[in-house]
Amino acid sequence: MSTCITNNLAAWIQNTKRSALQDMLELTSGPEYISFGLGLPNPSFFPNQYLAQASVEVLSNQKSLQYSSPSENLKEQIQKLMNQRGVNCKTSQIFLTAGAQQGINLLVRLLLEPDKVIITEEVTYTGFLQVLEPFQSRIVTVPTDSLTGIDVEKVEKLLEEGLRPACIYIIPNGHNPLSYTLTQEKRMKLGKLAEQYEVPIIEDDPYGFIKYEDSEIPPIKAFQSDWVFYVGSFSKILAPGLRLGWIIVNEDLIDRLSIVKEATDINTANLNQQIAANFLQKDDFYSHLSNLCFEYKSRRDCMLQSLSSELSTIGKWIKPESGLFIWVELPEFIDTMSLFKESIISEKVTFFPGNVFSVNGYRKANSSMRLNFSYNDHEIIREGIYRLARLVRKKI
Amino acid sequence: MSTCITNNLAAWIQNTKRSALQDMLELTSGPEYISFGLGLPNPSFFPNQYLAQASVEVLSNQKSLQYSSPSENLKEQIQKLMNQRGVNCKTSQIFLTAGAQQGINLLVRLLLEPDKVIITEEVTYTGFLQVLEPFQSRIVTVPTDSLTGIDVEKVEKLLEEGLRPACIYIIPNGHNPLSYTLTQEKRMKLGKLAEQYEVPIIEDDPYGFIKYEDSEIPPIKAFQSDWVFYVGSFSKILAPGLRLGWIIVNEDLIDRLSIVKEATDINTANLNQQIAANFLQKDDFYSHLSNLCFEYKSRRDCMLQSLSSELSTIGKWIKPESGLFIWVELPEFIDTMSLFKESIISEKVTFFPGNVFSVNGYRKANSSMRLNFSYNDHEIIREGIYRLARLVRKKI
Repeated sequence: MSTCITNNLAAWIQNTKRSALQDMLELTSGPEYISFGLGLPNPSFFPNQYLAQASVEVLSNQKSLQYSSPSENLKEQIQKLMNQRGVNCKTSQIFLTAGAQQGINLLVRLLLEPDKVIITEEVTYTGFLQVLEPFQSRIVTVPTDSLTGIDVEKVEKLLEEGLRPACIYIIPNGHNPLSYTLTQEKRMKLGKLAEQYEVPIIEDDPYGFIKYEDSEIPPIKAFQSDWVFYVGSFSKILAPGLRLGWIIVNEDLIDRLSIVKEATDINTANLNQQIAANFLQKDDFYSHLSNLCFEYKSRRDCMLQSLSSELSTIGKWIKPESGLFIWVELPEFIDTMSLFKESIISEKVTFFPGNVFSVNGYRKANSSMRLNFSYNDHEIIREGIYRLARLVRKKI
Repeated sequence: MSTCITNNLAAWIQNTKRSALQDMLELTSGPEYISFGLGLPNPSFFPNQYLAQASVEVLSNQKSLQYSSPSENLKEQIQKLMNQRGVNCKTSQIFLTAGAQQGINLLVRLLLEPDKVIITEEVTYTGFLQVLEPFQSRIVTVPTDSLTGIDVEKVEKLLEEGLRPACIYIIPNGHNPLSYTLTQEKRMKLGKLAEQYEVPIIEDDPYGFIKYEDSEIPPIKAFQSDWVFYVGSFSKILAPGLRLGWIIVNEDLIDRLSIVKEATDINTANLNQQIAANFLQKDDFYSHLSNLCFEYKSRRDCMLQSLSSELSTIGKWIKPESGLFIWVELPEFIDTMSLFKESIISEKVTFFPGNVFSVNGYRKANSSMRLNFSYNDHEIIREGIYRLARLVRKKI
């Protein structure tokens, strides 16, 4: 009977399975494992007390539980946040979403049709690829690496040759998984290309507010406003359990986004919007955010130091200016998928093997790994890298 | 420039506009209007205090703000609720969603492909039609009316003739907009047809817990388990501002739903899941629910009485056993879309003209109107029906 029912499903989902890696990571989520796998924020820095206070305040008004149009107050807070990063936008350009993943999903559904192509890097965020699956679209990849990021000249060449993708997907800060932050020069160039060839850029920026250096490069949106569709998230700066994010686009697109959003889930949870707006308008939020950057920076530095002590002659990595990950490239003869399986058993350390993020079989990804440094405390980071390096050295 | 960008959008959304009616209802949401238009719960009965208490309790645990797999506790509470209505299911068959609209959306994306058809009634919930739009599917409609509901014999005939729709869409209780509750006989027949022809039924049941009579007919899911995909909602029994709902399906489909859900918005807000579970496990929830039915029943009766006093010789309606609406049929020469526009100006009363819900131009819908009775208090209901009837009588 049950096999019968799955025969009724759309073709694309019949051919799509949960990844075995996802299952493995779930199986190894117990306290006996050290996890550098998922990109989880550190729960010690969730602003629970502030949000509890905000909940009580917000719930004193019965309307906080009603269906509701997007909160103007929250949009104003987002406008202020973006302004500090060099993006000037009106609140009427801000569209609230249930997290950045929904932001990407809504934009793709607005832009993509089965006969259109998409431009991504060879190595990119798997959540974006999942959004594309129902469309069965062709993905055109461009070279990338953790040192300088996406090869913008290659993007230009493809556009010059006449390719008109539905969109170009970019993660400008603390790239997931490659950990790079895109140079200002490349941002400006991408903005110009988007305008010249009338091709939208989806600028996915969940990590932009988690920054570790004083100098800061504005989002691509700051350099080209019309053709860049900016996607922001509260998951890393407040909490993922709220499911809140935003999109900044040309005002003309807001109504279209509302149509797709309404068909998807009516609107974003009003209670969550109110809670976030309540906290964001207090100075406490800004202290919370700078403390978060301080804490994550010190974990980044701890992991970098451990890597240097343990793997400096074997692996390569950069010092990420933003985000939650370090991308480590090992010698090409080391298959990190095998390493992952061994590591679970002998070292009880998990990470994401690089090829998980490879779109069209990017070779170097097979010997790379993505390490998360936000979730664990210093001691655990040191212990985990020590154990992982011990296993890697056995392969040399 | 901006026109340029909309040229880049997918074809279906270029041809889709926000409904003018939606805009009109927004414009007339001020306190000077009496609204029978939207299907809003009455905010006086939102359990704000209980949810504030639940928030504080839940937020004392930092994990309530983390990414999280679906709450087992909440699934157990849903299992218990469904059990009381005659549906026996395992918690492993329950899939949590951001409201019933998302439940429908996920199921349709799982089932529908552009070349497949869908069976609905001639008059149905507009939110379901919105979900179908990107697929540009053919919709096959069957007759329906507010007295007995969907014509199940016609459904059987279509299936006998070889039609194999991706799904059949049913609203069994307090139908939106027709206000009927489907007979047990028709439910059993639909269940049998689904099984016999291997065609899934989406049973959309947001109003099933809002019931006004002692006798109760179990959901279709209780009569046929495998081929009925049940969609439940907390919007009417807790609060829409939480965006929480659930799907009950065969266990084999849960993994597929997870894939679509993850690509859509990662997961349902953990905080909201925890808050709901916390409240549902208390007896207070069950008192809240029975009080809600009591209050809505008294508003239903108030509106029925006003209609009888004012329009008994002109209009037809039933006494709804469930839900938030009364569907009023007026003489065929009265165009309720024009009536709506006049009513806004001269009577300051809003409602939904019937043709908004008409799929393929169902004639009787043009002279019908959907009236919501949950949102307003008794005095306003009486005043609103008095004014509306005054306008209707001018047309006779």
